[in-house]
Amino acid sequence: MNPAVLQLPDLYRPIEADLARVVAIMDQELQSELPFVAQLCERVRGYRGKMLRPALLLLSGQSVAGVQSVLGGPAAGGVTSEHHTLAAVVELVHLATLVHDDVLDQAEERRRQATISSTNGNEAAVMLGDYLISHAFHLCSSLDSQSASRLVGHTTNVVCEGELMQIHSRGHFKLSEPDYIEIIRRKTAALTAACCRLGATHAGADETLASRLEVFGESAGIAFQIVDDILDVVGEQKKMGKTLGRDLELGKMTLPVIHYLREAPTDKQEAMLKKLASAEHDDRAHVAQQLTEFGSVAYATSVAEQHVSRAISMLEGLPESASRSSLLSMAEFIIQREN
Amino acid sequence: MNPAVLQLPDLYRPIEADLARVVAIMDQELQSELPFVAQLCERVRGYRGKMLRPALLLLSGQSVAGVQSVLGGPAAGGVTSEHHTLAAVVELVHLATLVHDDVLDQAEERRRQATISSTNGNEAAVMLGDYLISHAFHLCSSLDSQSASRLVGHTTNVVCEGELMQIHSRGHFKLSEPDYIEIIRRKTAALTAACCRLGATHAGADETLASRLEVFGESAGIAFQIVDDILDVVGEQKKMGKTLGRDLELGKMTLPVIHYLREAPTDKQEAMLKKLASAEHDDRAHVAQQLTEFGSVAYATSVAEQHVSRAISMLEGLPESASRSSLLSMAEFIIQREN
Repeated sequence: MNPAVLQLPDLYRPIEADLARVVAIMDQELQSELPFVAQLCERVRGYRGKMLRPALLLLSGQSVAGVQSVLGGPAAGGVTSEHHTLAAVVELVHLATLVHDDVLDQAEERRRQATISSTNGNEAAVMLGDYLISHAFHLCSSLDSQSASRLVGHTTNVVCEGELMQIHSRGHFKLSEPDYIEIIRRKTAALTAACCRLGATHAGADETLASRLEVFGESAGIAFQIVDDILDVVGEQKKMGKTLGRDLELGKMTLPVIHYLREAPTDKQEAMLKKLASAEHDDRAHVAQQLTEFGSVAYATSVAEQHVSRAISMLEGLPESASRSSLLSMAEFIIQREN
Repeated sequence: MNPAVLQLPDLYRPIEADLARVVAIMDQELQSELPFVAQLCERVRGYRGKMLRPALLLLSGQSVAGVQSVLGGPAAGGVTSEHHTLAAVVELVHLATLVHDDVLDQAEERRRQATISSTNGNEAAVMLGDYLISHAFHLCSSLDSQSASRLVGHTTNVVCEGELMQIHSRGHFKLSEPDYIEIIRRKTAALTAACCRLGATHAGADETLASRLEVFGESAGIAFQIVDDILDVVGEQKKMGKTLGRDLELGKMTLPVIHYLREAPTDKQEAMLKKLASAEHDDRAHVAQQLTEFGSVAYATSVAEQHVSRAISMLEGLPESASRSSLLSMAEFIIQREN
């Protein structure tokens, strides 16, 4: 396969019908008789982007079903209506974090449209995020068992802790690489890990297999966030469709910067520190050039690649299947994406 | 009973030990190994005020247990460990709304201390509120059945809708009284109603009785919010221990203002509208005087009293008990409170 042509719609083929069902469940859950609320929810529909988390959940469920048939479990399928509901739940959680992230980052643009915080004010954005998280839990509680609610609740606890750690570390230019990884493990990878675990367990996977898929999701999530952070510095705003450079402006430390401030010659380090502290917002291009030329972007990319490799190694126990191939390609997609 | 001496600790006597248990559960749920998060949670402990919602839930449970014994159900008690957990859940939900409300209202002071949004910034306050709501659902999912999670999720949906309606209606000086009541029914009374229903159902109450207690909670909640809104205009900042006058500043319509703009002579109405639109923030005293002299404060108080009466009438089916007396006194307390 030529990695340059990886396209999400191709990877999603095994779960195309399932994803349509997930979207329908989300739309149904977010219906409101109140015109203003309905209008905001309509805006949120535009936030739906790659549907990575539902896809991870559904593909994990499908990929595991094959194993079960080998062991004498259900012969095929594996993705149930519970998976559809859970996939809608994790996407609602994700949308809630996007809406609140835009408040935190004072972002103007998301998915090529103006953010809700910028057009309707922070108050509406805060409350809309709350509304989305509330609906996520409400929808999750429609399942028979509490186990998913428990895992989702635990996961959102961890996500919030990650966000709080990140807020607390803003402007701490000496943040270590392990602390950075711990922050993104919580704020991003905890949810992707939960997606894969939920998909697997609800398809009847045993604990060993569920754990492997959870690690797949976690490693993929860490890699995804590293790449996201790299793109915030060196990405093209037009391709990304969202406000870039916010990490630098807000004193949010990212891996290329951490590498540079650790490895560059002292005079370069000091010049960079001065730039970061001075909030010279229009200097993203210059910072990007420095980080690229010194090899800090390449270093961060290599760390992301290691996490992708780890993710892919977790798929080894799974039988060949279209869903397994898609999971593998999704992990590879993380490194290649430009938006 | 002399209403002037109503004190919450007296009313809480039947559930004193239970409330201590609720506090312990909350503290346990909010433990964090991360110092910054733990420190924020410590601040949130200072937000715990009247514990009205846990008290409503526990007293509803206790009051209903008596009825069950009449019908041949459990002889006494009624408050179980599930009630303690649920009481912690509803207080966590409430604390989350307080933290986010302070972001929305740009409030400086709450319970006589600086708000988290004012000392740690809006970002930390947004995420801490999310952290609290997440823990509320996480804790709720520890119960055996999904039914409570379902009701709590539905309730927070309604609360968020109420908040969104309120945000949308800001500066709409022609907001009608029914629309105002609908907003506060959602943003405040939905949760107090759910408290009473949860307390009742988890003590084994049948649907009729649970509905009556739900209406008790709803009516008491509406009355509570009307009084809260009155106090925002005419209350004493020292007694209230929080920033007052924010409703006026933010163009949030309250019942005294709605009454005045509906009933006062045209010239007075126009003068008031001008004042409200001009954001003369230091004029709370003058507005308070106008609303008081014209009888708009008295009118709003009378509407609150009607809701209190409705609440009290819902207790008629319950046998005499200490918890029933406390519920009755809590409803009376709403009107008398000065903070």
